[in-house]
Amino acid sequence: MLKGKPVRIVGFGEYLPRKVLSSEIEEQFGLYTGWSEKYSGVATRHHVTFETNAYMGARAVEQALANCSVPLSEIDLLISAAATYDYPIPNEASVIKSQLKDGNQFTFPTIDIDSTCLSFVSAFEIAANLLDGKQYKKIIIVSSEVSSKGLNPENSETVTLFGDAAVAVIVQYDEDGNSLFIKGGLQTYSEGVMDAIIEGGGTKYSFKDHAYNQKLHSFAMNGKNLLRLAKKCIPHFMDFFFRDLPISILDTDAIIPHQASKAGLMMFKSLYPFRDNQVKDSLCSLGNCIAASIPLTFYRSIKAGEIKRGDVCLLSGTSAGFSIGGVLIKY
Amino acid sequence: MLKGKPVRIVGFGEYLPRKVLSSEIEEQFGLYTGWSEKYSGVATRHHVTFETNAYMGARAVEQALANCSVPLSEIDLLISAAATYDYPIPNEASVIKSQLKDGNQFTFPTIDIDSTCLSFVSAFEIAANLLDGKQYKKIIIVSSEVSSKGLNPENSETVTLFGDAAVAVIVQYDEDGNSLFIKGGLQTYSEGVMDAIIEGGGTKYSFKDHAYNQKLHSFAMNGKNLLRLAKKCIPHFMDFFFRDLPISILDTDAIIPHQASKAGLMMFKSLYPFRDNQVKDSLCSLGNCIAASIPLTFYRSIKAGEIKRGDVCLLSGTSAGFSIGGVLIKY
Repeated sequence: MLKGKPVRIVGFGEYLPRKVLSSEIEEQFGLYTGWSEKYSGVATRHHVTFETNAYMGARAVEQALANCSVPLSEIDLLISAAATYDYPIPNEASVIKSQLKDGNQFTFPTIDIDSTCLSFVSAFEIAANLLDGKQYKKIIIVSSEVSSKGLNPENSETVTLFGDAAVAVIVQYDEDGNSLFIKGGLQTYSEGVMDAIIEGGGTKYSFKDHAYNQKLHSFAMNGKNLLRLAKKCIPHFMDFFFRDLPISILDTDAIIPHQASKAGLMMFKSLYPFRDNQVKDSLCSLGNCIAASIPLTFYRSIKAGEIKRGDVCLLSGTSAGFSIGGVLIKY
Repeated sequence: MLKGKPVRIVGFGEYLPRKVLSSEIEEQFGLYTGWSEKYSGVATRHHVTFETNAYMGARAVEQALANCSVPLSEIDLLISAAATYDYPIPNEASVIKSQLKDGNQFTFPTIDIDSTCLSFVSAFEIAANLLDGKQYKKIIIVSSEVSSKGLNPENSETVTLFGDAAVAVIVQYDEDGNSLFIKGGLQTYSEGVMDAIIEGGGTKYSFKDHAYNQKLHSFAMNGKNLLRLAKKCIPHFMDFFFRDLPISILDTDAIIPHQASKAGLMMFKSLYPFRDNQVKDSLCSLGNCIAASIPLTFYRSIKAGEIKRGDVCLLSGTSAGFSIGGVLIKY
């Protein structure tokens, strides 16, 4: 019934830095005990101590390779799919490759793909289109995010919400398999372009001309606007996405949304009459890990036995920009 | 003889900020008159005054659309292919879209692709793979670079070399046309990963923890190492790239290299017995415009009548990371 490209996820890997309890953050920033879980929906998340994006990303890649017994020599492309990075230049994927065990011995290409929180989703669609069984047989997508360094201590909503994490996913061309990439899509609703932003540190407010300033150099979001926009645009996006498919969103076996916020997840779940446990959730234990949230939640659901081979899964969410996107796959 | 995907470039647009003569830079930084042209090979380049990446990118897109009479309503994806950006978050393509005339009225997707100086080349390969005549019929690739804000005044080699510019290219699925995307490829040689870098301003040396410091927050390159590595690896890359093609690099009608540096261009031209004017050059008048250099040099060569419809063109170069990449197209 469902047609698609013969693309199969063959391995996952992850890296999580030190676990941080909400009580630690609440104590540090003068919030009452329980504030984070009540308002952000987050009880624990992980934050880096010594780790960098590339360090975490490289460890996740090594674990993914080991988990499916694929040697590095078989990799045809490494995509970094994230919104944060070690250095402004070079691109993060090249830094991750250089920190892989034996990474210097191979010359596979390294490219970054960024649609902020939907970077993994965009990268998956692009990887599926590149995989041809000839030039590209196996591609690694890595989402490694260090959100904790860009948070504003004065903003309780974000300082309790975000976590750091890395996930790596190996996808391969697999004509004989039963796995499929069915469809990908993204829509950008520009009216929300300024509602999730780090203003300083690019070329507009360069560090040369603008001294460090907590507000300018921290992530800021207009949660109310984003929620309003998401509520209005998600049905529009899903109508576009499913209009040429033989199933509806309710027929999917699992939906893995971006773990944007407690309010966002609640709003999304209220839009459709989903079945119990159809929509997966990792917010309480991992927080919002930017582009790593979707693949990490997916991996956790597979490990928990909640998603099985052959299940039709929608990986979808919202991102700064403001975009809504998704990929539909047969796992 | 040459096979490929039915992909055609239908329009170009560009935006250049104020022209800066080498004499201005030489006077400002205490270099003798003629230093820049002698050592960097650059007589003029353009630098922003009020412009941002998104401002320049949006103007280039508008010009490209006008040049080929394509309305914005026909665009299925906007890719920002660059190494510099207005804000760390959101992704640059979403900012460019929001600054387009009528950009807010459409919801086409916006994704960033970054392989530093080869971002346009990577984006072209990816766009060619997405273009299917159904979901994706027309894609705009924009390379808008503001290099001038990340230069170190104490480094004469880079402060005289880099220029700012934006280029937009509209590519479309075109089954009946005679244009082709023949092949794309990239290889990353990690031994050069630290040889072209801006260290500060990402999560490794974050602004929060590291005050502004000219050395840490400026672009630095180890020119000697890069030149040595390029000389060693370019033949390796070209062997890999052309091994399954029925032509050699010498059979191409035009080669549009990245305008990395005077020494780099001279070295590249010395590697093969190229015909006169086979290798295109814009370094002297535009400098190194990071990812904008290749599409800008290509556009200039077409406008000058040096490249015609049907010509087989290799767009290829080196990038921070350290990578070598290219796409071969029938224009």
